[in-house]
Amino acid sequence: MRRSERIAIITKILSTNPRTHFSLNYFAGLLDAAKSTISEDLTLVRDTFQEYGLGQVVTIPGAAGGVKFLPLLSLSKIASLLEEMSERLAEQERIIPGGYLYMTDLIFNPKHAGEIGEIFATVFKEIEPDYVVTIETKGIPLAMSTARAFNVPLVIIRDDSKVTEGSAVSINYVSGSTRRIRTMALARRSMATGSKVLLIDDFMKAGGTARGMLELMAEFKAEVLGMGVLVSTTEPKEKLVDNYLALLELEALDEKEKRISIKPGKWLYNFTG
Amino acid sequence: MRRSERIAIITKILSTNPRTHFSLNYFAGLLDAAKSTISEDLTLVRDTFQEYGLGQVVTIPGAAGGVKFLPLLSLSKIASLLEEMSERLAEQERIIPGGYLYMTDLIFNPKHAGEIGEIFATVFKEIEPDYVVTIETKGIPLAMSTARAFNVPLVIIRDDSKVTEGSAVSINYVSGSTRRIRTMALARRSMATGSKVLLIDDFMKAGGTARGMLELMAEFKAEVLGMGVLVSTTEPKEKLVDNYLALLELEALDEKEKRISIKPGKWLYNFTG
Repeated sequence: MRRSERIAIITKILSTNPRTHFSLNYFAGLLDAAKSTISEDLTLVRDTFQEYGLGQVVTIPGAAGGVKFLPLLSLSKIASLLEEMSERLAEQERIIPGGYLYMTDLIFNPKHAGEIGEIFATVFKEIEPDYVVTIETKGIPLAMSTARAFNVPLVIIRDDSKVTEGSAVSINYVSGSTRRIRTMALARRSMATGSKVLLIDDFMKAGGTARGMLELMAEFKAEVLGMGVLVSTTEPKEKLVDNYLALLELEALDEKEKRISIKPGKWLYNFTG
Repeated sequence: MRRSERIAIITKILSTNPRTHFSLNYFAGLLDAAKSTISEDLTLVRDTFQEYGLGQVVTIPGAAGGVKFLPLLSLSKIASLLEEMSERLAEQERIIPGGYLYMTDLIFNPKHAGEIGEIFATVFKEIEPDYVVTIETKGIPLAMSTARAFNVPLVIIRDDSKVTEGSAVSINYVSGSTRRIRTMALARRSMATGSKVLLIDDFMKAGGTARGMLELMAEFKAEVLGMGVLVSTTEPKEKLVDNYLALLELEALDEKEKRISIKPGKWLYNFTG
């Protein structure tokens, strides 16, 4: 087998299985090649990915060594993706009566959802969650893409307890913007007690839902390592939660003047990749 | 640049962007190489993918030619994945009081959801939907993976009309198993009238929800090209819909005896890949 054929196979397997450890032995067996040969191949893939901003290939040297692929994006790629999304989300026909922003076409598009997942996986690259947690419904595609980039299971908090999931823990919370009391619930068996989690959602206004999620996580004795939302509103400035990262900030949505102002979050200017 | 470096880049880009057309010019510019060189590279990637069952790389020859990657699985890979899933889903601790089958851990796992999406993309490879459509909540990760493999947007039917989506079309339907009247709704702007769609869901018992989805699609004058579910129950034999493909069939779930019988659908034995 030629080197370029081995490179094609290795690259395909790594790309399709983010954050999965593959041993040198695995590839040596699959490709019927010496471990030293595989090791050279992996170095080539790693250097090429690095040079072309295709993600990070981490090689672990030695006999027990191996490789895994981290789908991390460069700072410039993140900045350009967020600028593009801001432009698209500022289109005035996105204003829905009631002062809402229509973004379903963007976040339910697998390509864009995938990019957003990889952005979250990059900005939260220092953490190692056991689960990515979201609440139904619109955040699910983003949370799924994030879970994929982290190679961990997704957990979906439900609006109410569903009979098909067995016993569940439910809490009441006050939706920050509407002031209505609502219920969220999570089946006991969906998450081990004491897990480390990353919370992901599509939108945050007052932060009532986010605070509810934190309370529900506390019921599972989960350690919340981070919270990411695609869009948060600038107002109200005081949210019901403190530590969250919003990829985009919605500064204004004027239904009468048909004007939307949205831009990348300020964290981007301090982010060093 | 060496051939093996070009191969790594081409493979990564194709793998990450299923069913996306890339021209020879695109790669020639990106890799600073002659189109004839790129053409040879693509042939190597195509042949290697084919030999190792990594999916199908379709090359379009000629000046306006190019390439796209179809994440299709081999028949033997599909059979072994479905056998593995059947075994896991037959674990007796999956029985939930009320006679339900717990499968959330499997379908919310990005790796397995991704595999199921690629299975649907393979068994429905003859169709070209504009959208993959599902109904909230548990089918969403599977539908998202399927949409990703088809490179088309996902559409999520909601339990009721949500104010943040604008005007919506809603229908009432009778849940086949509980005989209760329920509502499902879809925002008008989430799908163009007259679209071609593939319906995906996680579970089908009597088919009431599926029939509701068909009726809602009719309201959008959509052409339903196919319907796929992960699991359907053998009983009732007469479903409220006719044309669907179930990857797995749940033959029995005995709460008292703690016994689950589930296996790949019979279509598998006629499927030629």
